[in-house]
Amino acid sequence: MRLTRYFLPILKETPKEAEIASHRLMLRAGMLRQEAAGIYAWLPLGFRVLKKIERIVREEQNRAGAIELLMPTLQLADLWRESGRYDAYGPEMLRIADRHKRELLYGPTNEEMITEIFRSYVKSYRNLPLNLYHIQWKFRDEQRPRFGVMRGREFLMKDAYSFDLDEAAARLSYNKMFVAYLRTFARMGLKAIPMRAETGPIGGDLSHEFIVLAETGESGVFCNKDVLDLPVPGEDVDYDSDLTPIIKQWTELYAATEDVHDAARYETEVPAEKRVNTRGIEVGQIFYFGTKYSDSMKALVVGPDGVEKPVHSGSYGVGVSRLVGAIIEACHDENGIKWPEAVAPFTVAILNLKQGASDTDAACEKLYRALTANGVDVLYDDTDQRPGGKFATADLIGIPWQILIGPKGLAEGKVEIKCRADGSRELMSPEDALARFGAKA
Amino acid sequence: MRLTRYFLPILKETPKEAEIASHRLMLRAGMLRQEAAGIYAWLPLGFRVLKKIERIVREEQNRAGAIELLMPTLQLADLWRESGRYDAYGPEMLRIADRHKRELLYGPTNEEMITEIFRSYVKSYRNLPLNLYHIQWKFRDEQRPRFGVMRGREFLMKDAYSFDLDEAAARLSYNKMFVAYLRTFARMGLKAIPMRAETGPIGGDLSHEFIVLAETGESGVFCNKDVLDLPVPGEDVDYDSDLTPIIKQWTELYAATEDVHDAARYETEVPAEKRVNTRGIEVGQIFYFGTKYSDSMKALVVGPDGVEKPVHSGSYGVGVSRLVGAIIEACHDENGIKWPEAVAPFTVAILNLKQGASDTDAACEKLYRALTANGVDVLYDDTDQRPGGKFATADLIGIPWQILIGPKGLAEGKVEIKCRADGSRELMSPEDALARFGAKA
Repeated sequence: MRLTRYFLPILKETPKEAEIASHRLMLRAGMLRQEAAGIYAWLPLGFRVLKKIERIVREEQNRAGAIELLMPTLQLADLWRESGRYDAYGPEMLRIADRHKRELLYGPTNEEMITEIFRSYVKSYRNLPLNLYHIQWKFRDEQRPRFGVMRGREFLMKDAYSFDLDEAAARLSYNKMFVAYLRTFARMGLKAIPMRAETGPIGGDLSHEFIVLAETGESGVFCNKDVLDLPVPGEDVDYDSDLTPIIKQWTELYAATEDVHDAARYETEVPAEKRVNTRGIEVGQIFYFGTKYSDSMKALVVGPDGVEKPVHSGSYGVGVSRLVGAIIEACHDENGIKWPEAVAPFTVAILNLKQGASDTDAACEKLYRALTANGVDVLYDDTDQRPGGKFATADLIGIPWQILIGPKGLAEGKVEIKCRADGSRELMSPEDALARFGAKA
Repeated sequence: MRLTRYFLPILKETPKEAEIASHRLMLRAGMLRQEAAGIYAWLPLGFRVLKKIERIVREEQNRAGAIELLMPTLQLADLWRESGRYDAYGPEMLRIADRHKRELLYGPTNEEMITEIFRSYVKSYRNLPLNLYHIQWKFRDEQRPRFGVMRGREFLMKDAYSFDLDEAAARLSYNKMFVAYLRTFARMGLKAIPMRAETGPIGGDLSHEFIVLAETGESGVFCNKDVLDLPVPGEDVDYDSDLTPIIKQWTELYAATEDVHDAARYETEVPAEKRVNTRGIEVGQIFYFGTKYSDSMKALVVGPDGVEKPVHSGSYGVGVSRLVGAIIEACHDENGIKWPEAVAPFTVAILNLKQGASDTDAACEKLYRALTANGVDVLYDDTDQRPGGKFATADLIGIPWQILIGPKGLAEGKVEIKCRADGSRELMSPEDALARFGAKA
């Protein structure tokens, strides 16, 4: 993408209303625009990150055997009356009446609807296990939306729902999602630690939150530092195999948010030199809630014994839009964002340090075309901004690799590659720069 | 995908409420479930088609230089008061009050919001031309939603918005979208004919509808049959070149829906043997509306002469969810859907005609793995349904290629490939079948 043809409205001023780093940086980097309290438009740069995160979430859900569908944003109020949650949900539910005065709501989550879909079609244990998910916009009418996409009202969530014949089978489904989440967040360059959690309004008796460690996080976190170095299952993980050793390994070391922190246990179990007290951001939560919805909504399946029983379920959420903010909280410095490569809006930024000079223009153009032709996401800063401005923009928007091309280096046959993560720089020929990104001239 | 692990709830009965073929077939093929009047859940098979269509739309928008962002589904009522459309829009607009009694609405279209975004950031002709688009769910509270996804209330639309300094430049942007639409619909296997259209509530003085020809379409269509054979621009089309010859070629032959049909002109211009009177479905519409929104909403840019002027705009819609229905209307027979390959949920269906027999199981398994490893979308019917049932399901869901693997053929070293489009069948070795789909064993 050529920057002169892109839409990247960088802000010079730090917006006053933004209280946390990710919100400030998303506004300054031209990723986001507020359209109403807690309701945002994703500008092109932000949209690219959102899509890269969504794609990783999708790939890992599919790998774990979950099947994607798409439920609508609006739901019938009557559906929620069946589960009893319509009255229980309170003012965070956005209630709507259509032109015929039928009661609708903007879905904050989809347990009821997926249970309705399930019970309409699935009658036998032969069709189990089943895990259905979607990635769809949700709405929660927060009393006081704040922190940008971290606590927005309209937000993008991946929510999966598993269906099994009994609790033992349901726990296998739960374990698959647990492992999929480990992989999902690790692929985004995050340290996300599963922590035992309260089940809250979803209900049920087993739940884990996945917490991204970030010094600016919303919750205090206490954990054994060894949990930070546990191995994440590879992409060859066999989801049909016994996953309990992985679950055990990831849950036996102490790790808790301040809400459920047990200081006595912490001090007993964790040697002083291994105690880590930091902060974190919740980016996913998984629940096993048994027959909570299948009981009230009559989602029954016939078992091998010919007897009808309510199906056992769990739900598994990932805050897709929230992750954009969480990643920035975990990956930024005073100059801007430092995107992990897997979620970066572009992998490489080419900075033409003397736009209009025929040698730099030609070298940039050649590199840009070759990288693009090889499938590398490149942003080519072909504006007539001065080098200082280009450096600042590239640092602010956090592209992992900057290729600086100026007349002085070119005279020696060199371009400079800067790594945004650690600031390191390296001089090399344009051919070597291409090869670095797996491209050929 | 193995069918035993998929979620494909085929209906045996033809649903009574469905009045048209696409709606009936989407329900029967397990693509869609109604959640409220005009509000649907996209089951996995339907979701795959929706995503394939969305992807083609996106690729062609990007190719034409449009830049993707994502605006939220909910909008502030005040934004629509600025353009005067809040009161003008009528009962089709879904109006919402949040917990603080702030007035919101579920966006039926985004001219106001994109104009607000544009005016907030773009002040100079130097940043033009600009074309921003998104693919987002919209809501129109139809008095009587019907025909499934063809006239739903919650629907997925691609809407692009162009911004230019003056009318001449705006017409270049219009032409780019015109050409992008020709390519978009052709890639989906459709004959979509641009027809001069009324501008309606969007406003403006230039508009074309793109009409897919289908005998079951909603509108009568009159055209010169030569328009059906016009060449569609290739993927090497240069959007920076002069596109007017293409536009001229596609607009000079007579083609009109019954709403604007001019019988006298038709009979004068079109020789009797070239007159085609058929039916069609609108799948896209493009508008040039000049300064309609920039005037009222003060979206001004400074020109090269230093003078501020309202920006000239157009909007360009594609009915993404509607296209699923339109394609089925154009491509089906009495046995089910006949997907064009580019939008098919799976390219190949493998039908194991004797599940449980070791030779057919092994042959199917080998073919399934090899095709999948080569990136072919395969649905493997590994259920214990009898062959007749498998044939019926494969025909109903419309997979373009069926590979039938049974003991009799295998004994002769053959599998059978059936083409869903024309019903033709061919016997060949499994290796040749692989090669047919560009795969290696």
